[in-house]
Amino acid sequence: MHKRDDARTAWLSLAALLLLSARLGIGAEPPPAQPAVAAKSTPTMAEMLAAAPASAWRKLADEHTLYMELPAGRVIIELAPALAPHTVANIEAFARLHYFDGLAILRLQDNYVAQWGDPDETRKIPDNLQALAPEFAVPLGSTAFTRLADRDGYAPQVGFIDGFPAARDQAAGLAWLTHCYGAVGVGRGTDPASGNGSELYAVIGHAPRHLDRNVTVVGRVRQGIELLSSLPRGTAELGFYATAAERTPIRSVRLASEVSPAERTPLEVLRTDTPTFTALVEARRNRHDDWYVRPAGYIELCNVPVPVRLMQPVPSVAPGPPPH
Amino acid sequence: MHKRDDARTAWLSLAALLLLSARLGIGAEPPPAQPAVAAKSTPTMAEMLAAAPASAWRKLADEHTLYMELPAGRVIIELAPALAPHTVANIEAFARLHYFDGLAILRLQDNYVAQWGDPDETRKIPDNLQALAPEFAVPLGSTAFTRLADRDGYAPQVGFIDGFPAARDQAAGLAWLTHCYGAVGVGRGTDPASGNGSELYAVIGHAPRHLDRNVTVVGRVRQGIELLSSLPRGTAELGFYATAAERTPIRSVRLASEVSPAERTPLEVLRTDTPTFTALVEARRNRHDDWYVRPAGYIELCNVPVPVRLMQPVPSVAPGPPPH
Repeated sequence: MHKRDDARTAWLSLAALLLLSARLGIGAEPPPAQPAVAAKSTPTMAEMLAAAPASAWRKLADEHTLYMELPAGRVIIELAPALAPHTVANIEAFARLHYFDGLAILRLQDNYVAQWGDPDETRKIPDNLQALAPEFAVPLGSTAFTRLADRDGYAPQVGFIDGFPAARDQAAGLAWLTHCYGAVGVGRGTDPASGNGSELYAVIGHAPRHLDRNVTVVGRVRQGIELLSSLPRGTAELGFYATAAERTPIRSVRLASEVSPAERTPLEVLRTDTPTFTALVEARRNRHDDWYVRPAGYIELCNVPVPVRLMQPVPSVAPGPPPH
Repeated sequence: MHKRDDARTAWLSLAALLLLSARLGIGAEPPPAQPAVAAKSTPTMAEMLAAAPASAWRKLADEHTLYMELPAGRVIIELAPALAPHTVANIEAFARLHYFDGLAILRLQDNYVAQWGDPDETRKIPDNLQALAPEFAVPLGSTAFTRLADRDGYAPQVGFIDGFPAARDQAAGLAWLTHCYGAVGVGRGTDPASGNGSELYAVIGHAPRHLDRNVTVVGRVRQGIELLSSLPRGTAELGFYATAAERTPIRSVRLASEVSPAERTPLEVLRTDTPTFTALVEARRNRHDDWYVRPAGYIELCNVPVPVRLMQPVPSVAPGPPPH
């Protein structure tokens, strides 16, 4: 763990790149200190990303991105319709109906989940959205899967599908999203078919991979996870909040496509099917930053960062002579 | 993920047991709902623990337990001298000197660590505590290691040493504590020997196992991790706090043995070398609670709970006739 003086040196040296690395969110690692005499050293993740081509990144799909507005700010969730088509469709329908507006964060269990929905269970759920078959895993089909070679204990193979940590069982022909930090899934009761997308959760602790294939995972928090992970923990059983006053209210949940362009957050996520990503994974699998004594030689799926970045237009300079 | 109505039913049914399960802290799972007609079902973790003999638990060693008092309450850290003898001795010396009193939480990086120490780097460190050799791994020796059979990607073998998640390399004759949620380690600079225990951190996100064997791990938060994990995230690079006002102050850090008995927290931790623990691990490796559709058949080291419980004396009833 970096002591502060080394961290300050690193920060001054990498100020521009660190604007970028500050957006890396999940899995950001301390950059190595810079030695006084320049020596051959491994590029940092920030450097690798700064050097990557524009094609190494993709925009979030606005029609499959949720903006959950909390008093403290916006939580941005990207949904993965390929991995839970009917469930994602239900959730998007709820969002278009403004179903979540005025609901609340119900539960914050340390090292586990933040969960949100209707505290009083009084809000009407449209008949056509009530029932939903579980999509705990879906047919592999032609979905492109970028395999992570590192062996996993919970699944035959793990890897990435379109920027989402995932797993597959080729023998069974199934794929599913994994419960890494920031994963978003559908709350349900004991009946496997009792989740309809009106109650959702996000992982805010060590990845509970044993939940994989037991619940429908629909996407991932791309930005704003700290607005959930830093909430007070609930004091009732399972981390539920005991009183209404403790619950953080949800101002609204909207599809990004349904807010005006000026209100959208122009995020891009690193693609997980490019040489840039492959190089990034290897740089994390074997850390050669000066700080590390012993590269691990292995990386667990949920320790692979999937960076995001905020785009902004370059200020335009009008050509021609200055005005009189 | 449990919807609230099933959770409420479960809570009412298990109220007494859940007083216990509320102390389970790291890794607590939602209990299954109780069906209307009693059916054969797997005991919950709370039930297994309630049925365990007293010998399945051990007290924390007061002389190796730190109480870090924050404004919001007490963080209890149990140190593991067998796994980092010189480092633990240094830290205990700092505690006896009241070194940490008035220092602060310096850093809170989401999905990573909380780190604390001297914000202004002005506090004198005694000469005899300045230099400390790294103890990134220690000789296995005769330390009893309870192996977890489940394969791990970061180490040849993983398991438990005296209630601490750990790993070993028998060929190299080395053992080390692993960076599971709640692990406490020593902050250092790029020089591997630059950590002396005056700056410490705790893991508050997905286990950064790539840090194993790169830094000295000294123990584990046994209670109060939420007082760290729920703190606001730092807004400067690496999650450091940008201003003094943002830093949570540390009122004091004391060895439990140096506070009066009345001020101690009578915690016990589940031993990791008993049939009770073996059964618990299996019950978590293969979840047969009603809620689960598909037991994982595998458990990752950092997903194994190591429960704690708070003891209280049973109120005594004086024998003999009532007073006049």
